[in-house]
Amino acid sequence: MKNTFGNAVSMTIFGESHGPAIGAVLDGLAAGLPVDADLIADRMDRRRARGDGLSTSRTEPDQVEFLSGVLDGHTTGTPVTLMVRNTNTRSGDYAATAALLRPGHADYTAFAKYEGWQDARGGGHFSGRITAASVAAGALCEGILRELGIRVYTHIAQCAGISDSPLSSAAGLVCPEPAPGHFALLDPGKEIPMQEAIRAAGGVGDSVGGILETIITGVPAGVGEPFFDSVESELSHLMFSVPAVKGIEFGAGFALARMRGSEANDPFVMREGKVATATNRNGGINGGITNGMPILLRTVVKPTPSIYKPQQTVDYTHYTDATLQIQGRHDPCIVPRAAVVQNTMAAFGILDLLTVRYGTLAQKHGLPQQ
Amino acid sequence: MKNTFGNAVSMTIFGESHGPAIGAVLDGLAAGLPVDADLIADRMDRRRARGDGLSTSRTEPDQVEFLSGVLDGHTTGTPVTLMVRNTNTRSGDYAATAALLRPGHADYTAFAKYEGWQDARGGGHFSGRITAASVAAGALCEGILRELGIRVYTHIAQCAGISDSPLSSAAGLVCPEPAPGHFALLDPGKEIPMQEAIRAAGGVGDSVGGILETIITGVPAGVGEPFFDSVESELSHLMFSVPAVKGIEFGAGFALARMRGSEANDPFVMREGKVATATNRNGGINGGITNGMPILLRTVVKPTPSIYKPQQTVDYTHYTDATLQIQGRHDPCIVPRAAVVQNTMAAFGILDLLTVRYGTLAQKHGLPQQ
Amino acid sequence: MKNTFGNAVSMTIFGESHGPAIGAVLDGLAAGLPVDADLIADRMDRRRARGDGLSTSRTEPDQVEFLSGVLDGHTTGTPVTLMVRNTNTRSGDYAATAALLRPGHADYTAFAKYEGWQDARGGGHFSGRITAASVAAGALCEGILRELGIRVYTHIAQCAGISDSPLSSAAGLVCPEPAPGHFALLDPGKEIPMQEAIRAAGGVGDSVGGILETIITGVPAGVGEPFFDSVESELSHLMFSVPAVKGIEFGAGFALARMRGSEANDPFVMREGKVATATNRNGGINGGITNGMPILLRTVVKPTPSIYKPQQTVDYTHYTDATLQIQGRHDPCIVPRAAVVQNTMAAFGILDLLTVRYGTLAQKHGLPQQ
Amino acid sequence: MKNTFGNAVSMTIFGESHGPAIGAVLDGLAAGLPVDADLIADRMDRRRARGDGLSTSRTEPDQVEFLSGVLDGHTTGTPVTLMVRNTNTRSGDYAATAALLRPGHADYTAFAKYEGWQDARGGGHFSGRITAASVAAGALCEGILRELGIRVYTHIAQCAGISDSPLSSAAGLVCPEPAPGHFALLDPGKEIPMQEAIRAAGGVGDSVGGILETIITGVPAGVGEPFFDSVESELSHLMFSVPAVKGIEFGAGFALARMRGSEANDPFVMREGKVATATNRNGGINGGITNGMPILLRTVVKPTPSIYKPQQTVDYTHYTDATLQIQGRHDPCIVPRAAVVQNTMAAFGILDLLTVRYGTLAQKHGLPQQ
Repeated sequence: MKNTFGNAVSMTIFGESHGPAIGAVLDGLAAGLPVDADLIADRMDRRRARGDGLSTSRTEPDQVEFLSGVLDGHTTGTPVTLMVRNTNTRSGDYAATAALLRPGHADYTAFAKYEGWQDARGGGHFSGRITAASVAAGALCEGILRELGIRVYTHIAQCAGISDSPLSSAAGLVCPEPAPGHFALLDPGKEIPMQEAIRAAGGVGDSVGGILETIITGVPAGVGEPFFDSVESELSHLMFSVPAVKGIEFGAGFALARMRGSEANDPFVMREGKVATATNRNGGINGGITNGMPILLRTVVKPTPSIYKPQQTVDYTHYTDATLQIQGRHDPCIVPRAAVVQNTMAAFGILDLLTVRYGTLAQKHGLPQQ
Repeated sequence: MKNTFGNAVSMTIFGESHGPAIGAVLDGLAAGLPVDADLIADRMDRRRARGDGLSTSRTEPDQVEFLSGVLDGHTTGTPVTLMVRNTNTRSGDYAATAALLRPGHADYTAFAKYEGWQDARGGGHFSGRITAASVAAGALCEGILRELGIRVYTHIAQCAGISDSPLSSAAGLVCPEPAPGHFALLDPGKEIPMQEAIRAAGGVGDSVGGILETIITGVPAGVGEPFFDSVESELSHLMFSVPAVKGIEFGAGFALARMRGSEANDPFVMREGKVATATNRNGGINGGITNGMPILLRTVVKPTPSIYKPQQTVDYTHYTDATLQIQGRHDPCIVPRAAVVQNTMAAFGILDLLTVRYGTLAQKHGLPQQ
Repeated sequence: MKNTFGNAVSMTIFGESHGPAIGAVLDGLAAGLPVDADLIADRMDRRRARGDGLSTSRTEPDQVEFLSGVLDGHTTGTPVTLMVRNTNTRSGDYAATAALLRPGHADYTAFAKYEGWQDARGGGHFSGRITAASVAAGALCEGILRELGIRVYTHIAQCAGISDSPLSSAAGLVCPEPAPGHFALLDPGKEIPMQEAIRAAGGVGDSVGGILETIITGVPAGVGEPFFDSVESELSHLMFSVPAVKGIEFGAGFALARMRGSEANDPFVMREGKVATATNRNGGINGGITNGMPILLRTVVKPTPSIYKPQQTVDYTHYTDATLQIQGRHDPCIVPRAAVVQNTMAAFGILDLLTVRYGTLAQKHGLPQQ
Repeated sequence: MKNTFGNAVSMTIFGESHGPAIGAVLDGLAAGLPVDADLIADRMDRRRARGDGLSTSRTEPDQVEFLSGVLDGHTTGTPVTLMVRNTNTRSGDYAATAALLRPGHADYTAFAKYEGWQDARGGGHFSGRITAASVAAGALCEGILRELGIRVYTHIAQCAGISDSPLSSAAGLVCPEPAPGHFALLDPGKEIPMQEAIRAAGGVGDSVGGILETIITGVPAGVGEPFFDSVESELSHLMFSVPAVKGIEFGAGFALARMRGSEANDPFVMREGKVATATNRNGGINGGITNGMPILLRTVVKPTPSIYKPQQTVDYTHYTDATLQIQGRHDPCIVPRAAVVQNTMAAFGILDLLTVRYGTLAQKHGLPQQ
């Protein structure tokens, strides 16, 4: 379905970096759900670039306009359309090097796919700019989940070579909200070192990547579908739609390759009258279905492909080798901004899976008690 | 869509481990495609357990019966239904411990989801047994891809702590077929050490996991869709439907977290009159769309959860803590068998993506020349 | 999705008239639902040809085998696969005239679509035989609906020029089950005249069609989705998948063209403490959503295209005009058999729509009280 | 998928009658297709109310804004978003009677579905106003079809009791464009009588309906899918999403009920070296697949439910019987405006079906020659 995803709740994404607007259509929401405008504004603000040497100097207010589906601060049950106008576009930055394929970008693949008719300005539909739409839509979903007792939290597990504290039951399960304007970290003391490492890379015209870790609490056991609609399938499908994500793992993930079964299996225990697991190496998911423990996943975000160092490339108007010196405004690191993208995308995915199981009305009336 | 996946070509999976049969319905194939019965038989044979101390002693001939969509060795254009009868089922093995949740398995999640009505025998629909159906269907797709000049190859990058040789352009791009009855390895000299390491774990009632690496060559540039139907989204969706997969990465994957942009970007070069990249750290995919280079992905397969060591668990009929001693027939390692599962699943995904772009008829008449 | 349909509950259809088997995969059912084997057997029996001069002399026992998803007479929550083996196939009947396109049949369109690779034997995938699979699957759904207080009934409103009594609240709303072996009529006195009219047409090598009327009671108000997933959209999509259906109308249908608004509008009234309508010219549906009144629809079934009279046609191996004299075994009228096809298809569609709104678990635990 | 429909080409509809905007997202278009702005403007103009006693006095310029997917008059291959701002909204008209359910409208069903949270102003999402979005999107598709040699034409077969000339090969197959500002009729002489009949009904506070007939020429044989995605299934699904449509028939439609097979079958003939049919009672479709003849369908449009005559209804805030006297601006007949709605919806459906078969690129590069 290309730019539409979801079973019971669907999101349709549209827009180009330098086009009139970007936006999203969210369908399948119950009527009468409060739209948490503050939460949406907070999420948009976290995604926003700040022009502080850490992210691009293209800063836009990113005002979200509701075109449909919302009345008096509540959903009406029909498609919710969110639009964000593009205002601060400087396509001229790209003109000088328009014929040179930017390594690591979608320039060449878009050219091949759209036979030269793509909107190439600013990366067009492949720009990270598009995630402003998914963040707005996902934040609306996150607000709905909160009313159902479900929290989604993403921290920067690693960035520019600096690692955050590991998730522990003490820190991880309470899902701290990062202070406004700060990095999402379990250990706030890592913010300055990370920022310095990012600026160091940016200072030499280079960029860095990192790993984001997402934890989702409060999802009851029994959510997700066997085989093709496993929780991992749905969430990975969504995460890989986010530009720059090149890997995902659940629970202990790739570390499971070197564990033995006796280490990888999470022993079941009775805890407060409920079935729980003593460890969580399966990330809250067995056989593709939630087991009631926190869902844990990590995504890797590659270094920003737009770097200022000269790069070897191809001039595709003449099909000759060439050297590219990128102009324009770019983030030396998108990891801190991506945290909220992954967080809201996960919120959307979980809301869809819950709705498949419990029906649309449960979004409003609550999940059945277990 | 739960047990159905795909846009232009879809696969529907059905069956339980100890039910009458498992199978798959493959829809969206062109008419007149030769069904490569030898290739299907080879793939089924690779997935088959051998009862040799490396895999379960439940060995079945796994005869594939075509119920529809095939006539005189060719597709007819209508749904192809493949069925494999279950013959060697010993449900009694499970009876003694039926009330004890097996750690790492879907017992508890299936119980929660299906409210006690699941077919629990042998893991039911969550058994690895189900992959016999996806392998048969995917092998049919793999045969179609071959006619289009596309090859899919999966080797055991790591298993039981033993690593295969890394993919290099010399070894990787020729996609060697493993010799029948042997592990899929680039370095055949690693087979004996791997088997010994597996048997060592099995000998102490434990199990091991590993990492599979898949390479797909011959896919033209421009395949895949932006945002939700990126190549990574589609392939990861499919891979996470395979039991025991807990992580996936494309190209350099998680290693990108510690690279700088200047290392992670693949420089474009002209090669034999075509645009290519000098390195392939993006795994043949930029912006979710193929760039014509080989598609590279790795999946982690967790250690078999069925181990013979005593495990802490819960008796869910009495909601009490308990100790489980698993009976039955289980693989100490499923990684070698999983290689063909991932390989055929990838083949299905690529055929779907190609068909979305080029239409159903291109399956028969070939892809347009670039 | 070609041979798969449904949102929360999906049906996948496979098989050819003279292939090994036909069948259906039903996904999205809750676990623990009783499978009403008697109802399925009754529906299969009603669809079955009897070789009595009214329907084809190809009579088959049509034994339904459950390949998956059912255990001890209850659904397990995973895909239910139903298979019916083809046993009484006489492809030789078709050999003599294989090159001659049968007017009114899919011979030419299948040839064009599948470029000559279609399974043409007995009409292949386009044969009415395929409906044996949809009837079995739909009958399972009908049984589930009954537990929820919803009844589906289809009578032969008109056949071979003979009309049944019109639906009235007295007769229509009680949904009488036709006696086994008899036509589904509100007025049993019309059976003999209809049969005589059918035999009269058959006696001169010709065939007749008719109109079926379906009524669905007990569906609560608020089911269906706006715009593309209106109740009419979903049900018409399903009905037109049934061979020979060429028209559908809801409520007063085409007669609305000559009514004025004051006649066509159904006045709302309070009845037993609930909102109801005094008339039902909108067929229980306003704006695509159910209003709690019985859903009413009519489908037209064209005369069986297989007739024994000589017909003008084309020999598509030589692209010349030709005359066709059809052999084989054919129904002079499929309307009585089609009644149960439409009935079970409607049951499937309603179950899907209910599940979209109320969730999978409501199939088992009941609809919320209004 | 609720407000999204389509397989290879999808349309997502959003908006409410009195909300900020209505719109559509069209995904799956090839890149580089010219956007025929004149055709879109013409279609929007035909749908527009004129305030001439024939249609509502709510007249809006309906300026279509492209938010994404179009650059320099061509598609870019990414989702095309069309938005139309609502400007002339007078919600006050509805306030006085807001508690009274309007018979024939979706007031009650929306109330039941959305539990009182629906946007009820002007009919909200259920208003015919929403079709402005589908007309704009469908007109874009119609322009693409024209480049492929396919024409779609809809005339008013019957309205207010006045019938247009029947389609004949002479008149029907040339698909005349109606003169701007005039009714779409084969016989222009019927316009004045129809208008007089409409005004006569409007003059007594009543309304009328009618039947629209659509013909689609140039579609090659072999388009459409067996069973669930028959051409009839896809087109009927779309047509019933249009408010006020209560019936659809293909070819001879309901008249087939009284024909014999020898009358209903269309004899095949060789014509200009191609297979054709001598008659077209199957409406260009056999077995759900196109046969190369013109596709013929008719939809019935019920009389406008908004009438000025007093009507019996229910006050749903007090659950009492009541009498409703509708205020506001309403069409005594929407049939002439609906003609372009059906026409553009059919164009969208045909483009989707063609793309499923021939791939996205064929939209630009043309259909293969037969």
